[in-house]
Amino acid sequence: MKPFERVAMMGIGLINGSLALTLKKAGLAGEIVACARGAGTRARALELGLCDRAVESPAEAVEGADLVVLGTPPAVMGEIAAAMRPGLSGEAIVTDVASIKGRIVNDVIPHLPEPRMFVPGHPVAGTEHSGPDAAFEGLFRRRRCILTPIEDTDPAAVQRIRAMWEKAESSVDVMTPEHHDRVLAITSHLPHLIAYTIVGTVADLEEEAKTEVFKYAAGGFTDFTRIAASDPTMWRDVFLSNREAVLEMLGRFMEDLIGMQRAIRWSQGDPLFELFTRTRAIRRGVIEAGQAYVRKPADGENGGNAD
Amino acid sequence: MKPFERVAMMGIGLINGSLALTLKKAGLAGEIVACARGAGTRARALELGLCDRAVESPAEAVEGADLVVLGTPPAVMGEIAAAMRPGLSGEAIVTDVASIKGRIVNDVIPHLPEPRMFVPGHPVAGTEHSGPDAAFEGLFRRRRCILTPIEDTDPAAVQRIRAMWEKAESSVDVMTPEHHDRVLAITSHLPHLIAYTIVGTVADLEEEAKTEVFKYAAGGFTDFTRIAASDPTMWRDVFLSNREAVLEMLGRFMEDLIGMQRAIRWSQGDPLFELFTRTRAIRRGVIEAGQAYVRKPADGENGGNAD
Repeated sequence: MKPFERVAMMGIGLINGSLALTLKKAGLAGEIVACARGAGTRARALELGLCDRAVESPAEAVEGADLVVLGTPPAVMGEIAAAMRPGLSGEAIVTDVASIKGRIVNDVIPHLPEPRMFVPGHPVAGTEHSGPDAAFEGLFRRRRCILTPIEDTDPAAVQRIRAMWEKAESSVDVMTPEHHDRVLAITSHLPHLIAYTIVGTVADLEEEAKTEVFKYAAGGFTDFTRIAASDPTMWRDVFLSNREAVLEMLGRFMEDLIGMQRAIRWSQGDPLFELFTRTRAIRRGVIEAGQAYVRKPADGENGGNAD
Repeated sequence: MKPFERVAMMGIGLINGSLALTLKKAGLAGEIVACARGAGTRARALELGLCDRAVESPAEAVEGADLVVLGTPPAVMGEIAAAMRPGLSGEAIVTDVASIKGRIVNDVIPHLPEPRMFVPGHPVAGTEHSGPDAAFEGLFRRRRCILTPIEDTDPAAVQRIRAMWEKAESSVDVMTPEHHDRVLAITSHLPHLIAYTIVGTVADLEEEAKTEVFKYAAGGFTDFTRIAASDPTMWRDVFLSNREAVLEMLGRFMEDLIGMQRAIRWSQGDPLFELFTRTRAIRRGVIEAGQAYVRKPADGENGGNAD
């Protein structure tokens, strides 16, 4: 008797695919049913052993499932939830893995037979790759996972989802959807926006200059290109769905950047040195919080900050 | 008979220290003399085996040296060159490892007995750590090194410095100082400026928010903190010394960022999606140019782009 007899994975890319492998390995799931629109994706998910069955219809996918995981691009989760309705049991726990929470709560809940069984979640883990081939067991190991239940959410359902992520070796935190969206705006959304932008700035350089940028990317540009290779659909949805928090943080960043621009233009070395010294201390804070680790750069990688 | 009988390392931190270890291991240097102002640095360099002798006086350090490597913060290289003068032989090759080249050429050459023996260089390698303890053999392996000789530079001297870096397993390119400074402004200087700025924006958040940023840094912020932990003195000098090229690239970036801000404010998904798709292609260009490599994120690190 597994914790979940039948799990429906709505979407089977990097996150849901990796979760499927993790649930299987941890013995948490009986049958895993993947739901994907594309026949190619379904075939590949089966080949890769991400699921036992793969179907096209959301309603068929969720039939008899006691756990449903929404893992499609955030913008279509509401629509998928609506399409699941005919097959969905009121006892089933529904969760999601989107990087934004406020909008998902608003989009998904109206379509569920039992809103209290919806446990909004966000595993803070990923790579720049997407699709079923990007999935791997262990993606969530030593990562954080944020659950954002609302007032009516069933505490027992929250507990079961928490236990699932803890089995995946994630450390689980609980906060409100609004708080989640503010925190992620600065830790994740703004960094992605900036990386996308600078890589775009380079993309607009003349061909010859561009070739050289690739050649000398180890000078610091490499990390930005990795971040800016993340899934375009998902990130478009994230920025548009978390607009207010992203614009607020972006505004603060731009004010600071203009201050730097001014200091450089007027050759003011002291404010630059003072800032660079403060930011060095922040790195220590991050390392102590266990979100980074100190290492010598590996061959082929530079650490992103060559001199 | 080694290629260099006596090497004077002017400054013995991450770069010069790592070069010293590399020269020793490759059997390229006889005696290595380190020059550092601080008694603590000199003692530590000796303890770590980065040099055979450590002295305070630049003139004493370069006596009898057939190779002199300037590895101090860029802004003081001219001053160090002037102080070396009494001890420096006209046959000695002088090179440097600064991340900027135009200014170094202007600052150093007037103080040399034989300007044609100066080979300006920039190993594009490093980590966020600095000082003698950060040095390690192999830092330059599979990295690029840029040499920027000027018209009068002695071709034989350039050849010997090229051979030295190739022994360190770096791939060597030659270009003008001006061209180097333009290319590095976008591949290295602007990315560092942006990373310093966003980490500073976070540093200004209220305490409680800051703690959470550390906790969820894996969402993309981690890479920025690593870049923004780089040596403050060196980077202040870089931005002030390469001002024009940095301001030009920063201007382009800010225009693009304002475009993103506008697209988000007005919920224009298409330009965002189109940009994010183009930037994904750039990543492939960088990987093909061999400056990055595809990997699953290691435990404790996230790859900087968790969802």
